[in-house]
Amino acid sequence: MDTLILTADDVHSVARYVGLDALMDALMDRLTAAFAVYRPEDTPIPMRKGFAYHRPAPGLIEWMPCMGREEQVTIKVVGYHPTNAARHNLPTILSTVSAYDPATGHLMCMMDGTLLTALRTGAASAIASRLLAAPHTETVGLIGAGAQAVTQLHALTRVLDLRHVLVYDTDPAVQATFVARMRSFADSLTIEAAPPETIVRRADVICTATSVEIGCGPVFADTTPQPWAHFNAVGSDFPGKVEVPVALLRRSLVCPDFREQALHEGECQQLPAEAIGPSLYELVQQPEAYRFAQDELTVFDSTGWALEDHVAMGLFIEYATDLGLGTRLAVEAIPDDPHDPYQLAAAVAASVS
Amino acid sequence: MDTLILTADDVHSVARYVGLDALMDALMDRLTAAFAVYRPEDTPIPMRKGFAYHRPAPGLIEWMPCMGREEQVTIKVVGYHPTNAARHNLPTILSTVSAYDPATGHLMCMMDGTLLTALRTGAASAIASRLLAAPHTETVGLIGAGAQAVTQLHALTRVLDLRHVLVYDTDPAVQATFVARMRSFADSLTIEAAPPETIVRRADVICTATSVEIGCGPVFADTTPQPWAHFNAVGSDFPGKVEVPVALLRRSLVCPDFREQALHEGECQQLPAEAIGPSLYELVQQPEAYRFAQDELTVFDSTGWALEDHVAMGLFIEYATDLGLGTRLAVEAIPDDPHDPYQLAAAVAASVS
Repeated sequence: MDTLILTADDVHSVARYVGLDALMDALMDRLTAAFAVYRPEDTPIPMRKGFAYHRPAPGLIEWMPCMGREEQVTIKVVGYHPTNAARHNLPTILSTVSAYDPATGHLMCMMDGTLLTALRTGAASAIASRLLAAPHTETVGLIGAGAQAVTQLHALTRVLDLRHVLVYDTDPAVQATFVARMRSFADSLTIEAAPPETIVRRADVICTATSVEIGCGPVFADTTPQPWAHFNAVGSDFPGKVEVPVALLRRSLVCPDFREQALHEGECQQLPAEAIGPSLYELVQQPEAYRFAQDELTVFDSTGWALEDHVAMGLFIEYATDLGLGTRLAVEAIPDDPHDPYQLAAAVAASVS
Repeated sequence: MDTLILTADDVHSVARYVGLDALMDALMDRLTAAFAVYRPEDTPIPMRKGFAYHRPAPGLIEWMPCMGREEQVTIKVVGYHPTNAARHNLPTILSTVSAYDPATGHLMCMMDGTLLTALRTGAASAIASRLLAAPHTETVGLIGAGAQAVTQLHALTRVLDLRHVLVYDTDPAVQATFVARMRSFADSLTIEAAPPETIVRRADVICTATSVEIGCGPVFADTTPQPWAHFNAVGSDFPGKVEVPVALLRRSLVCPDFREQALHEGECQQLPAEAIGPSLYELVQQPEAYRFAQDELTVFDSTGWALEDHVAMGLFIEYATDLGLGTRLAVEAIPDDPHDPYQLAAAVAASVS
């Protein structure tokens, strides 16, 4: 009874074989389908919990479980360490995802979760934008130009007919390399640097994906966006950490990915519960009911939802299995006699004892 | 930046090289040392949470995190599926344990948790028994003769001068094979089958390690044990699941491994909070204060504590590293540029897009 281990190399091989555009499209299709049938009472998804560290480095290690019914229990463990890039040349987010067989508890698969996280976060914003952004959207603004900005923009290019990109990062070096990191995905786009408030005033869709420190948000001053502007607020994921001015939230239809969690650690922290709009899955289930919002200010409050990881992992497992990728290891002890914990260790133990 | 993967084979190789007696002794030493310095405010350990399934098979999948300060975050995921043995010839408990670097979030090690769980559960009972059992203990009773009973008795042989073992299992086949599964660990012991109530009346130390169903406990009728009898109640680990009659608990000093969790899913469920005695770590920190209890009825309410897994995993990682065991895989994506999620997938993607 083996465990399939998909390393970063395997995950990226999937991406190379399938193609990043096709992978993003397939993921958006799967997520949309999962949201369309999601009912909270069928699929328990507890809020993520975690440990917050102040030393040796400021950071979080969190676990995000999702109780799949038919398929698998998925648990993502994600580290969030804003100093990783500067101190260790490591990504801010390091994560792995594991899938367990609900029938036996067997660990079926463990895989790198870094690309998966970036992809599903981009896909969720694109699904929200397809429903809430103005159909005539041409200009996307990016506040925060790190790893998440790449998949935000990539995903948006798959659902909107974009022409212009405005980009800002507090770190000039990160801002300067953004075009190169977008590669051919941005070939048909003009990409221009601009300060945050200019981005907010000019763009049709704005993605905030920053590592703003707790208590230091929002990441732009309240200003007058386009009347139809849609925001994907991606970075807010901890109590006290917010990116969008509360005054703007109050003028907007605010749609969380996962309401309970967004109230605790998303932009929704800044709002009373009754001021929060439908969740993304409710938008997907009733698109006509919320079409009016395409002409109004809207905010997708993306805290990161375990259902997204669950769906994305299922897709990667399918592709990897089809392609014969991954390493299979017999991780768990399966003695011939399940009542004999020492069977596998006993051969020599008898002579030792 | 590799992840060390210790499969069941690696874990059992550690056990063979080190020897099961030496491994159990080292684990008891480490656990005792960890309990001696444990302070709840320094080491947050949330209660385990999990998903309970009724189909496809009755079972639980739970996660047990422990926030190590200096060393590692440890998260054990454990499946508990009582029908595994009969339906799949698999152990009731399947588990894996993972260790994360608090400085970066990096997954340092993932390993089989099955032997680790059985060992640390035995070790905890032995530590409790060394403190609470009568020094003249000669007879151990085992109610439930499955995998956990093997490590319970093995651990007890390391701390008590045992002569006789009384054993009972609801499954005659499991009871019949118990002696063979104990191997040479039981060479100097007489092992005799007996009904549960006889075991409770005659033994100095009694271990209950059953898979009694929710609502179907206790596993023996209230009777009169030796006045100094000590119980290790190991099987109770879910709301509604208990092994020991409440009347006996009321006459005993009841010591949980993890008070908050024991109140929720251990024998302590049957008691008001104020009737619960010191936790195991408090016994270790103040052995003289509780020496009187060796002459009285005592119950160690063992629900399984993430700190035990944390300590046991640290020990296995040390041994495995010394012995050069395990598989190292670069599980997580570490691009040269931490802001470039597509770097590793980009070579072909450009031509695909």
